[in-house]
Amino acid sequence: MSLHLYYGPGACSFIPHVALRLIEQRTGQPFEATMVRMHKGEHRQEAFLRINPNGQVPALVDDGQTVTQIVAIISHLARRFPQAGLLPQEVWARTRALETLAWFNNTVHPTFTRIFMPSRIVADEAAQAVVRTEAVGAYRALMAQVQERVQALGDAFLDGAEAGPCDAYALTTTRWATMGGIDVATEMPALWTYVERVAAQPAVAATIAAEGLTLNMFKKSS
Amino acid sequence: MSLHLYYGPGACSFIPHVALRLIEQRTGQPFEATMVRMHKGEHRQEAFLRINPNGQVPALVDDGQTVTQIVAIISHLARRFPQAGLLPQEVWARTRALETLAWFNNTVHPTFTRIFMPSRIVADEAAQAVVRTEAVGAYRALMAQVQERVQALGDAFLDGAEAGPCDAYALTTTRWATMGGIDVATEMPALWTYVERVAAQPAVAATIAAEGLTLNMFKKSS
Ligand SMILES: N[C@@H](CCC(=O)N[C@@H](CS)C(=O)NCC(=O)O)C(=O)O
Ligand SMILES: N[C@@H](CCC(=O)N[C@@H](CS)C(=O)NCC(=O)O)C(=O)O
Repeated sequence: MSLHLYYGPGACSFIPHVALRLIEQRTGQPFEATMVRMHKGEHRQEAFLRINPNGQVPALVDDGQTVTQIVAIISHLARRFPQAGLLPQEVWARTRALETLAWFNNTVHPTFTRIFMPSRIVADEAAQAVVRTEAVGAYRALMAQVQERVQALGDAFLDGAEAGPCDAYALTTTRWATMGGIDVATEMPALWTYVERVAAQPAVAATIAAEGLTLNMFKKSS
Repeated sequence: MSLHLYYGPGACSFIPHVALRLIEQRTGQPFEATMVRMHKGEHRQEAFLRINPNGQVPALVDDGQTVTQIVAIISHLARRFPQAGLLPQEVWARTRALETLAWFNNTVHPTFTRIFMPSRIVADEAAQAVVRTEAVGAYRALMAQVQERVQALGDAFLDGAEAGPCDAYALTTTRWATMGGIDVATEMPALWTYVERVAAQPAVAATIAAEGLTLNMFKKSS
């Protein structure tokens, strides 16, 4: 079996990247990871389009076949490596994990796209600024919802006793919030404390190091 | 066991609605379905918010517990009723089904939201018109991608020999295209022929009748 992830540093591919690290730590199954330099447009170049014609990360190549879509990749890995405990086996617990992953994926993630790539929404540059500003407001409200959930966790994680895919999604989207000009550490300290706890978990810390990420990207001027 | 779906006619709740009908036909397990009159704002009223605080359909209540998010609801039902064959058991086939569902859910669906509720994107009404127009262009391109996929199917369906959740999502999003002013039957006849085939499948036909839907909502004037 061979597992190969194509990722962009700090992109949503961070979620399967953490999952693969967890599998490696828990089962010994290794993986390869190739960085796609998105700022250089590598995701739109022919070499990568042969792997994922959609031109997006993450793309997981498992024994020569490409899987896209974070939710599908995580489910796929959970079924391939049941002993790694990426998702719970029990029906209801698994349903709750998928519900959380799907919500990050279909609600939080597309809202960030309006902040990060408003050109995907409207061509006009003045209109893009408006789209972005209003998206920041919507994103702040979503982050408050995340904070409310993680505040109830105590010392646990969204994925249980150890951080997993849902926590990796929470960390990634919170980091994006700081990139989008939201001062999470000041505005939502409970969310930030949780994210720092997630970041300290071995598989997450290793992935942050591998991708070369700074957790808090907030700049006063932005 | 009791299963209760809250749906809006023609909304994305159509996908779990078809799934429940398939379960009933294939296993005898019945379900209840309650219509939420979204045009009257019932999804924002207290009675419904007690079921789903997010104020959205679909909400599935399974033995008193609410599940939201289409992808999680379909996975949940597939695990509760493995004999109904909602999703394939084989790892790769299931991964492909989830990949398709996730793509409709995180890409096609949020693009339609920009057509149907541009007020979620920008407050200004003139800006909303621009958001909507550009979203129609993006949506048309996504529909062309769906057409390309279904053209390769021959007499089969996205979900195999019979229509299932992926086909229900394709039907729903194509119907939305016609609501958004895209003349699918004329512009993408192969897609439309496929959607009519899906609509004729017993579980789908029964759901269309139960929700009182017209398949082709295109109006020349729009
Ligand atoms: N629907 C995809 C979303 C993937 C996605 O949004 N990827 C972004 C990075 S976070 C990307 O590659 N963007 C580049 C582009 O769209 O051009 C999934 O769930 O995996
Ligand atoms: N993320 C949800 C999306 C649900 C959704 O978009 N529901 C729409 C109908 S298609 C709705 O209830 N809209 C009303 C609203 O958002 O106010 C899912 O995947 O189930």
